[in-house]
Amino acid sequence: MSFNTFGHSFRVTTFGESHGAAIGCVIDGCPPRIALTEADIQPYLDRRRPGQSRFTTQRQEADAVKILSGVFVDETSGQQVTTGTPIALVIENVDQRSKDYSDIKDKYRPGHADYTYDVKYGLRDYRGGGRQSARETATRVAAGAIARKIVPGMQLRGALVQIGAERIDRRRWDWAEVERNPFFCPDAQAAARFGDYLEAVRKRGSSVGAVIEIVAEGVPPGLGAPIYGKLDADLAAALMSINAVKGVEIGAGFAAAELPGEENGDEMRIGNEGQPMFLSNNAGGILGGISTGQPLVARFAVKPTSSILTPRRTVDRYGNETEISTTGRHDPCVGIRAVPVGEAMMACVVADHYLRHRGQVGQATAWPFPQPPGKA
Amino acid sequence: MSFNTFGHSFRVTTFGESHGAAIGCVIDGCPPRIALTEADIQPYLDRRRPGQSRFTTQRQEADAVKILSGVFVDETSGQQVTTGTPIALVIENVDQRSKDYSDIKDKYRPGHADYTYDVKYGLRDYRGGGRQSARETATRVAAGAIARKIVPGMQLRGALVQIGAERIDRRRWDWAEVERNPFFCPDAQAAARFGDYLEAVRKRGSSVGAVIEIVAEGVPPGLGAPIYGKLDADLAAALMSINAVKGVEIGAGFAAAELPGEENGDEMRIGNEGQPMFLSNNAGGILGGISTGQPLVARFAVKPTSSILTPRRTVDRYGNETEISTTGRHDPCVGIRAVPVGEAMMACVVADHYLRHRGQVGQATAWPFPQPPGKA
Amino acid sequence: MSFNTFGHSFRVTTFGESHGAAIGCVIDGCPPRIALTEADIQPYLDRRRPGQSRFTTQRQEADAVKILSGVFVDETSGQQVTTGTPIALVIENVDQRSKDYSDIKDKYRPGHADYTYDVKYGLRDYRGGGRQSARETATRVAAGAIARKIVPGMQLRGALVQIGAERIDRRRWDWAEVERNPFFCPDAQAAARFGDYLEAVRKRGSSVGAVIEIVAEGVPPGLGAPIYGKLDADLAAALMSINAVKGVEIGAGFAAAELPGEENGDEMRIGNEGQPMFLSNNAGGILGGISTGQPLVARFAVKPTSSILTPRRTVDRYGNETEISTTGRHDPCVGIRAVPVGEAMMACVVADHYLRHRGQVGQATAWPFPQPPGKA
Amino acid sequence: MSFNTFGHSFRVTTFGESHGAAIGCVIDGCPPRIALTEADIQPYLDRRRPGQSRFTTQRQEADAVKILSGVFVDETSGQQVTTGTPIALVIENVDQRSKDYSDIKDKYRPGHADYTYDVKYGLRDYRGGGRQSARETATRVAAGAIARKIVPGMQLRGALVQIGAERIDRRRWDWAEVERNPFFCPDAQAAARFGDYLEAVRKRGSSVGAVIEIVAEGVPPGLGAPIYGKLDADLAAALMSINAVKGVEIGAGFAAAELPGEENGDEMRIGNEGQPMFLSNNAGGILGGISTGQPLVARFAVKPTSSILTPRRTVDRYGNETEISTTGRHDPCVGIRAVPVGEAMMACVVADHYLRHRGQVGQATAWPFPQPPGKA
Repeated sequence: MSFNTFGHSFRVTTFGESHGAAIGCVIDGCPPRIALTEADIQPYLDRRRPGQSRFTTQRQEADAVKILSGVFVDETSGQQVTTGTPIALVIENVDQRSKDYSDIKDKYRPGHADYTYDVKYGLRDYRGGGRQSARETATRVAAGAIARKIVPGMQLRGALVQIGAERIDRRRWDWAEVERNPFFCPDAQAAARFGDYLEAVRKRGSSVGAVIEIVAEGVPPGLGAPIYGKLDADLAAALMSINAVKGVEIGAGFAAAELPGEENGDEMRIGNEGQPMFLSNNAGGILGGISTGQPLVARFAVKPTSSILTPRRTVDRYGNETEISTTGRHDPCVGIRAVPVGEAMMACVVADHYLRHRGQVGQATAWPFPQPPGKA
Repeated sequence: MSFNTFGHSFRVTTFGESHGAAIGCVIDGCPPRIALTEADIQPYLDRRRPGQSRFTTQRQEADAVKILSGVFVDETSGQQVTTGTPIALVIENVDQRSKDYSDIKDKYRPGHADYTYDVKYGLRDYRGGGRQSARETATRVAAGAIARKIVPGMQLRGALVQIGAERIDRRRWDWAEVERNPFFCPDAQAAARFGDYLEAVRKRGSSVGAVIEIVAEGVPPGLGAPIYGKLDADLAAALMSINAVKGVEIGAGFAAAELPGEENGDEMRIGNEGQPMFLSNNAGGILGGISTGQPLVARFAVKPTSSILTPRRTVDRYGNETEISTTGRHDPCVGIRAVPVGEAMMACVVADHYLRHRGQVGQATAWPFPQPPGKA
Repeated sequence: MSFNTFGHSFRVTTFGESHGAAIGCVIDGCPPRIALTEADIQPYLDRRRPGQSRFTTQRQEADAVKILSGVFVDETSGQQVTTGTPIALVIENVDQRSKDYSDIKDKYRPGHADYTYDVKYGLRDYRGGGRQSARETATRVAAGAIARKIVPGMQLRGALVQIGAERIDRRRWDWAEVERNPFFCPDAQAAARFGDYLEAVRKRGSSVGAVIEIVAEGVPPGLGAPIYGKLDADLAAALMSINAVKGVEIGAGFAAAELPGEENGDEMRIGNEGQPMFLSNNAGGILGGISTGQPLVARFAVKPTSSILTPRRTVDRYGNETEISTTGRHDPCVGIRAVPVGEAMMACVVADHYLRHRGQVGQATAWPFPQPPGKA
Repeated sequence: MSFNTFGHSFRVTTFGESHGAAIGCVIDGCPPRIALTEADIQPYLDRRRPGQSRFTTQRQEADAVKILSGVFVDETSGQQVTTGTPIALVIENVDQRSKDYSDIKDKYRPGHADYTYDVKYGLRDYRGGGRQSARETATRVAAGAIARKIVPGMQLRGALVQIGAERIDRRRWDWAEVERNPFFCPDAQAAARFGDYLEAVRKRGSSVGAVIEIVAEGVPPGLGAPIYGKLDADLAAALMSINAVKGVEIGAGFAAAELPGEENGDEMRIGNEGQPMFLSNNAGGILGGISTGQPLVARFAVKPTSSILTPRRTVDRYGNETEISTTGRHDPCVGIRAVPVGEAMMACVVADHYLRHRGQVGQATAWPFPQPPGKA
């Protein structure tokens, strides 16, 4: 991960500011001959798009993605497929309404990157947050849609498991429920509660954070490039790079610190088709930085939206003390829309490691190993 | 971070297995003319070295570091300094006692990477854990000792804040205490408690995890390369790459999800010398992936040691179900020795970003900015 | 250099096919606060644009560049400047005339990458050469226009010094002449000769190659990251990556193999302002992979255009032997338009190393060094 | 290629100075289960070792390589094999004879990197050339020995084709001859001539350069990662990074600029087993940056040794004009020993691309393609 590119073999470079001409990304290293049209990407963008409920910003973004390069119609199949060359995706910024930025252009919003961009670069595009805006995450979602097509058999889903101090009941987890409420919440009862809770937060000009869980099933064992390209290290960076994320954990995560060793280590048995079976998944599908074949499980914490109505003390770029109160279109909980973004980031990381593993090792190892000669 | 190298401008490549000939690292991109001898590195290795108390493994590792390259005596000062060329460090493995590995060489220890290395690579060096061994972290500590010399004025320290279910009382935090107990614990009362607690854990053949906090003061504002080389993203990867780490958080971390927006966002005032001052540090010193100038604060969770005396169910590499019980030298809490390792990783990440920022931006921006003409 | 990205600190990622929707690039790592509008880039694109004389393809490409991101108007100066975030540039493909590709879509043109793209990826975008088309080089030229603004005081120019078997007379070298003829030729007499020569080549349905020389003056000493990021190694890769290039040399180049040591090594004296002065420049401004402060001099050889009217024997993708003769718009010498491309590549490499050097070393070393104590 | 690492998937990091404790390298990304002991590497080092004839420096370097990590004995085969973890190789510097460096430590040798290292880093290890010494190339040769084992069926050989102004007669090319003379010369008659020629050069206190050709047969088609990771771009960088190299060419190289298009483009027919056959190899086995399946052919020019007995004008680091004459052990033609180094660099580049291609594309494309439906 460096500058605005992430991934080693499946590489994603993003660009664009919230209120510039367009945002987009270039995906490099994608295998050739994968069926791909805008219709494969758009549904994921639509899931992330704001303005879909009263709990997300009312800014209307069409977010129509356009593929500029890297695809061609295969004569044999008649399908449009990837060619192995860079895939450039662009989303125009259509809702750049002319707005009065006189308040935020000089003042730093607490919790925002206004000050840090200013002090690093000596100026910043303050319109809609510029490059710091969560709008950039649309390009990640687009890249993730392509990444999902690379790992055969992988099913990757995300859910919101906590909003503010409100948690789901994991016993009621139902993946089907996730698509039925505006919170990506897998617990129908919690989702009902979340609505009232968040409405109250909004009314008092406040905001709350959230915790999101991403699960990838069907990830083959053996993915990961220890020591510093560990699958969990790359996941941690990928998820931490999402706007407003302050914590990442894998499997049992921070709770593992409290478990005794005999509870934490996942025991093994021989399962179906003679393959190893784990009796629990505290590891979250990763041991030593390499996938075990169990579901990958990662969670990340999103801080509360920093742009709030409640006035806060701050300073301006000319060294004056002042106050700021953010009006306008803002999600009371940016964590909600982080669900499809987290999915996309995990999809990209797994796809990258799938290609890296194939490069270094080639064919998967047949397990179990044959007994060495003279052993039995 | 890729394969066995991390860092973009300050790059560290490590090598070696627990019971091979040697472990070591190559540090590339280090600025020239920094005073450096083995004596600058050895104290950090000594802090990490096992066998220093009954709470860490009794394996005796001299861990004497040797600089093979990248230094030269400067004629003017008479000091040995870095030359700007790669610094290779080697630590010989002196305690490679011939041992009977017949039990673990075919069986997979629950919670260990035995299975994943085997299924990825088709074989593994099982002696002492091979490449997965925490012994590799000695090379990180050595690299960190050099990284500390790069950022002028930085003071970087770590502490253990939780062991198993036992937490420190943050009101009693005393940095001086950290060097006075075998737990790197900043709370003297908690440290006393930890001893008995851990002794009981050991006696019942179990183990526990820990939470470590690393704090870097004196980090200049403006470090970080958003969007994907964010300072916190790189920290997350660096800390997650440490053996047995399952979670990473910055500043308020997971707790930020529960805070209302008006509590979480750190308010600003004008402080000493006209520079910005924050009234709290929930951000952990990072906003938008860029350092704020406040102390960097990161925490990470280490799972309990997987090698325990209590027998566990497992399988062997030939597809048979079996049991395993690990005897021999093992820390009941590997998290303790993770403190100097976490420090080293943060030092390397900050040094890397210090050089990256200097490369892209050059001189730091003078803050506050002059009022534009005709503004006042 | 990897996949479709080059550069370490100043990074350029390009995308697009000859007849797709658009070509473009993303420039990452550019310092902030550099004045930049489309008008800074367009003149360089116009120099490279085909259809400007009878010696380059008549394909009309408006090649109008559009900046999508990474710039903002600085309030103080009123200028549009870079922000330090990724600069995305797009050039739409306006001349995608519907054409009959039935001949080349299945047949491999000798000297072209038709076969290799097909065998690597299993398909290729054959329209106008797809990704292999020299059209991609427009994006390099655009990136180079930005790179030129990074190194203070650098003057970087290119010239065509040989076309087919015809060479310039170096004694008549006049940089002003380069912009006065359609060959970028610094020798007026040679340029006159080249016209007739090339006309004859074209008339017999043939093509020829060329040799281009790029010279950068004002490059500070000390740039280059040995051993594997040597300035000349990066230049060699950058120039060799240009379409149809088959050879690269620095300074005296291949001729250096024939020189005796006492002629080749450039002697030194003390010159103006007490700085070192070289009495010749066989090194081409680079010693040990690091710039000397003398002009950087690189040359590269471009093979003759592969798409020619003369029929050639070939095979098709279905395994049949056949013949091919390329009609349509093609430069008899693609080397001519390679001049601005070569300039752009050297500009990008030098800019990258300028930032890398500043990152690792910071301020330039003051030379000469003070005499050590007790020496004189 | 960056700093002291090269390669993307097969990565080599080297370290060490001529007269430091040791030189060495770390090879990362090597596939697991490749048989490897020191005996696989040592013969290549022995070929490169100086002191083997009167035409190379008499410095005696045992150059005994030691593998520190990354290998393990596979129980099934009983063989020592790679494990997929980093392979660290070390060669101790045994011949660090205490010497008087008083002359060269302050003076810059014309043609050497003395000045550029000094001005870049502010100091340099002047003993034996320090990091600039050709001694570093021993580590490349060691890495190359491992790289050779990665590409199945590849046969890679190098030869010296020109020394000073003396060229071989390519019609007498005999690979077997290369190992029979001290020049790696494939033309027996030329080799005889070279001896007298070089003896005269040495006697007059001079030196000469050389041109080396490297040929890799059995490289599968499809390797190369266009646009900026082209196989020839990576080869150019790799060869140009070798000490004293000033030019690189592929296939017909600079001569291609003079060829008419109908001679340069290699025609194709269907050959054995229905695979494409080229009727010439001006492309040097690479089209569009991707291997064609023909032999890879690269040449590079080495400048004459800069350390010569003949006195030259120069300056010292304190700003004084002076003269220098280099006595002591030096090859009159460093190009001779560059033959095994060039082989190693090409081997590493091809191995890297072999793994990269396998990562992105997986199985090789079956050629020819099936006729699409309804086509025939």
